[in-house]
Amino acid sequence: MELTFSEYSLVYNMFSLTIASMLAAFVFFYMAQSQVAPKYRISLIVSGLVVGIAAYHYFRILQSWEGFYYEGAPFNDAYRYVDWLLTVPLLLVELILVLGLSKEKNASMLPKLVIAAAAMIALGYPGEIMADKSDMMYYVWGTLSSIPFFYILWILWGELGKAMEDQAGHVAVLFRNIRLLLIATWGFYPIVYLLPAIGGDAGSTVVGIQVGYSIADILAKAGYGVMIYSIARAKSEADGWKVG
Amino acid sequence: MELTFSEYSLVYNMFSLTIASMLAAFVFFYMAQSQVAPKYRISLIVSGLVVGIAAYHYFRILQSWEGFYYEGAPFNDAYRYVDWLLTVPLLLVELILVLGLSKEKNASMLPKLVIAAAAMIALGYPGEIMADKSDMMYYVWGTLSSIPFFYILWILWGELGKAMEDQAGHVAVLFRNIRLLLIATWGFYPIVYLLPAIGGDAGSTVVGIQVGYSIADILAKAGYGVMIYSIARAKSEADGWKVG
Repeated sequence: MELTFSEYSLVYNMFSLTIASMLAAFVFFYMAQSQVAPKYRISLIVSGLVVGIAAYHYFRILQSWEGFYYEGAPFNDAYRYVDWLLTVPLLLVELILVLGLSKEKNASMLPKLVIAAAAMIALGYPGEIMADKSDMMYYVWGTLSSIPFFYILWILWGELGKAMEDQAGHVAVLFRNIRLLLIATWGFYPIVYLLPAIGGDAGSTVVGIQVGYSIADILAKAGYGVMIYSIARAKSEADGWKVG
Repeated sequence: MELTFSEYSLVYNMFSLTIASMLAAFVFFYMAQSQVAPKYRISLIVSGLVVGIAAYHYFRILQSWEGFYYEGAPFNDAYRYVDWLLTVPLLLVELILVLGLSKEKNASMLPKLVIAAAAMIALGYPGEIMADKSDMMYYVWGTLSSIPFFYILWILWGELGKAMEDQAGHVAVLFRNIRLLLIATWGFYPIVYLLPAIGGDAGSTVVGIQVGYSIADILAKAGYGVMIYSIARAKSEADGWKVG
């Protein structure tokens, strides 16, 4: 596969944009703790972990991309799966924590969601690293990985949706919005996963995959964290808490 | 294009000055939160994000400048646009937040300003990366990019100006000053954008562009943030809040 310099640069600049976004989000989630009631700060701490882990991996991905273009070293896409294995369960943890449910509800939902999220990533990985994307197993792994994904959606719309029914109007709207952001951004990953099967290993496919994953990561981690912050703010106000 | 060593050094030192200014401003906006009433601290947090993101990009710009001069690698001007895509919307967010308007006013103004700012940057980028600056399209992109710019000015002088009419005298003066700083610094970018069309690709043009952008960035981000801080102080005092 041959990349033109402008294809290389577009991906490089997307990676740099992602690093800047994740670092800025990290600083924001740390500083903005003073803006929410103490009981919701733990969800901002977890949001900060997610974007901090992502910033670390994008530094490595950018270096690997330089080595790939200039020295012909293999591009290490495994960084993404290592990142997701850590961050995707944490994304569900920050959502559950910000909702301020009962201890029993948390204890019932957190383990199910964390295990499903880890299984979703672990089952996608063997397909992603297959050299021959026309192999049947590529689709088998993709399908297996989708099962925990649908299980997560079933919990978010079912059990969690029911637990959220008694929330104040403004909080309920924010909760529905973040659930939509989650399905819209997470739904993007299977599309990017399937791109090589459609576009082969042309340079433009590689560019599409890397730019697609970067945008999805910014929205699903930094953008999602800002929505977690909005929920934390709204719930702090609903609880009668004031900044100060 | 050939650069003399003193031309190279002038730009290099300007980049280093910019990094130092942005990092110092970052520390200041973080520490000075204790000097303003709690409700205005969020605007200092956002000011800190802006100069933090700029410091990151100027580190990369300086590295790219070294590679350009010593190794003949292409100078990556895209860093600036990536930076602006993140920071310019945030500059408008910090202004709106420090004014402490009603929730409804914020909800009406923030999305319009953020989208217009992002559109202004995104439309300037295709022109900036054109190799042939005598091409008609160079002016078309520049003109398209100006439309959201004038829309932002129209909001700041119209809807926002009206919302500010009932503010205390001292705050109203500061608001008019920061609006002037905004138009003076932001108006500088289109001039720098047009420099290559006037000066060709001579070394002195490149030096003018890089020194010009650096000065504009220091004033529009760090200087502007200090004015945001002054407004936050003035409003804290007007609210009867005391440091301590």
